[in-house]
Amino acid sequence: MAKEITSREQDYSQWYIDIVQKANLADHSAVRCCMVIKPNGFAIWENIQAQLDRMFKETGHVNAYFPLFIPKSFLSREAQHVEGFAKECAVITHHRLMNAPDGSGVIVDPEAKLEEELIVRPTSETIIWDTYRTWINSYRDLPLLINQWANVVRWELRTRLFLRTTEFLWQEGHTAHASKEEAERETQTILDVYAKFAEEWMAMPVIKGVKTANERFAGAVETYCIEALMQDGKALQAGTSHFLGQNFAKAFDVKFSNKNNEQEYVWATSWGVSTRLVGGLIMTHSDDDGLVLPPKIAPTQVVIVPIPKPGAEIDEAAEKLMKELKAKGVRVKYDTDDQKRPGFKFAEHELLGIPVRLGIGARDLAEGKVEVARRDTKEKSNQPLEGIANYIIDLLDEIQQHLFDRSKAYRTEHITSVDTFDDLREVLDGKGGFVSAHWDGTTETELKIKDLTKATIRCIPVDNELENGKCVLTGQPSKQRVLFAKAY
Amino acid sequence: MAKEITSREQDYSQWYIDIVQKANLADHSAVRCCMVIKPNGFAIWENIQAQLDRMFKETGHVNAYFPLFIPKSFLSREAQHVEGFAKECAVITHHRLMNAPDGSGVIVDPEAKLEEELIVRPTSETIIWDTYRTWINSYRDLPLLINQWANVVRWELRTRLFLRTTEFLWQEGHTAHASKEEAERETQTILDVYAKFAEEWMAMPVIKGVKTANERFAGAVETYCIEALMQDGKALQAGTSHFLGQNFAKAFDVKFSNKNNEQEYVWATSWGVSTRLVGGLIMTHSDDDGLVLPPKIAPTQVVIVPIPKPGAEIDEAAEKLMKELKAKGVRVKYDTDDQKRPGFKFAEHELLGIPVRLGIGARDLAEGKVEVARRDTKEKSNQPLEGIANYIIDLLDEIQQHLFDRSKAYRTEHITSVDTFDDLREVLDGKGGFVSAHWDGTTETELKIKDLTKATIRCIPVDNELENGKCVLTGQPSKQRVLFAKAY
Repeated sequence: MAKEITSREQDYSQWYIDIVQKANLADHSAVRCCMVIKPNGFAIWENIQAQLDRMFKETGHVNAYFPLFIPKSFLSREAQHVEGFAKECAVITHHRLMNAPDGSGVIVDPEAKLEEELIVRPTSETIIWDTYRTWINSYRDLPLLINQWANVVRWELRTRLFLRTTEFLWQEGHTAHASKEEAERETQTILDVYAKFAEEWMAMPVIKGVKTANERFAGAVETYCIEALMQDGKALQAGTSHFLGQNFAKAFDVKFSNKNNEQEYVWATSWGVSTRLVGGLIMTHSDDDGLVLPPKIAPTQVVIVPIPKPGAEIDEAAEKLMKELKAKGVRVKYDTDDQKRPGFKFAEHELLGIPVRLGIGARDLAEGKVEVARRDTKEKSNQPLEGIANYIIDLLDEIQQHLFDRSKAYRTEHITSVDTFDDLREVLDGKGGFVSAHWDGTTETELKIKDLTKATIRCIPVDNELENGKCVLTGQPSKQRVLFAKAY
Repeated sequence: MAKEITSREQDYSQWYIDIVQKANLADHSAVRCCMVIKPNGFAIWENIQAQLDRMFKETGHVNAYFPLFIPKSFLSREAQHVEGFAKECAVITHHRLMNAPDGSGVIVDPEAKLEEELIVRPTSETIIWDTYRTWINSYRDLPLLINQWANVVRWELRTRLFLRTTEFLWQEGHTAHASKEEAERETQTILDVYAKFAEEWMAMPVIKGVKTANERFAGAVETYCIEALMQDGKALQAGTSHFLGQNFAKAFDVKFSNKNNEQEYVWATSWGVSTRLVGGLIMTHSDDDGLVLPPKIAPTQVVIVPIPKPGAEIDEAAEKLMKELKAKGVRVKYDTDDQKRPGFKFAEHELLGIPVRLGIGARDLAEGKVEVARRDTKEKSNQPLEGIANYIIDLLDEIQQHLFDRSKAYRTEHITSVDTFDDLREVLDGKGGFVSAHWDGTTETELKIKDLTKATIRCIPVDNELENGKCVLTGQPSKQRVLFAKAY
């Protein structure tokens, strides 16, 4: 099975497709550019959701649900916003089908035309801020710290499973505040939650930064992001947190009376991560044998394989071990299939990225041993059965840490400082990764560089050191370096 | 606050609206017939989801996600299915907006017309069975036991929050089997899961039954259901589990090779419950003072109110108690608002349906006591602070049981056996509830009775006793009684 995966070196893009399809994570659907998330892929998303949801709640947020549909006129209320989304949206014009009078099949009923078209939400700022108008009267109603888990639709012409599809799943936070400072703080709080989640749970190192004006969310005053680096040297925007100022409050007339009983517009943030994270997870850790999953996110953390096949004695030992591991919160499975050879199973579990595999044979049992195989390093060792549960728990932590360290080392090697445009281009076309370079701060230069190199400014890191320099393209003065990269 | 709720006796329908709106459970939205589920309402749905999801997984199911959109032609593949859903669906015809050439605003771009219209899923049998065709080849690929949590859209002209809206949230299970018997067993397994969940978690007694042909899901061979009874004597269909036979396998050409290497069509089931359950929960237990929630589903199970207001000593006692209760898995909050009087808070917590309220005052503390108020019976008592955590845990169980017993007693009183049509009509128009009567088994008679009484056959109970009798309308022979009721 694993043999059929194209190697990263041979064709990185095909390698990704192979992993997604052979590990049964997702598939294309009959609906153009929409994906089916298969059970193996969805289980990863469920673990991502569960942990993020905990972190949102720990920081005071609650969940709610707003309509899938947005009246066309709502999109137009915020000028930048409509500009950003109108060109890629699904438009509902009718609410009924009928049998064709000529018997040729089912057609749209022309009598059921909507007075105003509805858009399938590409993001929910407009419908939510229209709702907030009725919820917010006074400073006592603030802050509103609301999140929703939802599907959204942005029409795409090309699909890459998890990374770019017309429909995707995400969470979108929409908060309302009485002051600019509080809204800005919220934007940072969420940026930190995202970075912590990416690094501690997904073992995916990220750079926290702010987007340039050109890369800002349509309608935001400032867009913060976490940027990760994939193994092919391309960057992946893994999450964004927007400070929206009073833009949406003004567009939807959402005011509150402050403590002095004066009317003020409400301050807003919005923020989101999506099923794209699953794509990032795959591309950060996996290898030519298949998926590699960090234990904290892996749907199954440990698989026990009977060698050569199930039998009373081995079953008993496995059941006992499973019970012990489950009691300690480990997600463990026993592979009782008696039709497949161990070697075949090993390849299968490697393809699926299960962090730890335990092989239990009759001879091992007699000697009080078990074979432990790590997915990340492929190392195997014999360990005493006595105390194996604690050994495994420590090993899972070690694997989690090792995956993070390995990705971090890769990223560190792939941040290159350059001072000339030629060097910028050379690094982008060769070694890849983030390139740290001076930029004159204008959108014009940014777009020219994008045109010449296909790279964009991924972000201005939030902890950036100030440093005088000259723009690599124009030679104009610059006060700090920014990170360029080709990106997904 | 609670004073503003219309009483059930005065206007049951307005009472329901008042509870939903004043307890901040849901609201109408700017999008016609779509609802906003507010944080208080969504927290209830999250608890419903979490428990059902556990029960699905315990019975071997996994989650996945299928596209929101369904090509128009898919709906037509199954003749009954298109008949059932074509008249109430949201149709996507275009994928882009543009600025009107005359500057009048944003319009649909006529150039962006889809070749084939897409329907927003009203249910996902068609897109899922189209997908299953590529997943199923052999008996080894079966069974497929898949569930999805999703939003669906069925165009409605009238809205009742939670009970009937154009968009709603639900779960839909779609399973594929190698034999008729196994698929039928699955249908029953899920019916049992639904009934167990409704009764043990929602404290809502239900009758398990099978629908008549006329009330069957569009495309099903047999539809099973759980039917609950609301306090106004109307029935609520709370969940359905369909045996689909080979209808969708035939419509989408899904075959498998059996153990003898012969090609057979796959057997199917589908089943779902929705946010409608929240409506059922409200109408089963709540009273004229507001929401009443069973402890197992209540987002907050216990609220501690400092009397008359927060203070060092009371805070300390409350924090200690909270810690102890949280350690035992109780969802508890401390109401530290120092602007509101206790009486106001009491009414608020009653409106929100928090099962247990603890009042802690300085004098009580000195005496080692705490005031315990139950939401269900409104009883108050002083209890020793010593051992209060265990007392509360027992009390939560007792409340859960009491709510179930109370609703069950109400339902038992509201199942009336009648033998004449006049009696049927009289009970339906007066006392309400389920009416158990003989029916001749024809759709014609069923529709005539519906026309005359506005009542439908809710189900033929699965554990029905056979009994010879005569149809209340036609006098034709009948072998068993069925349950009639007016319904939501």
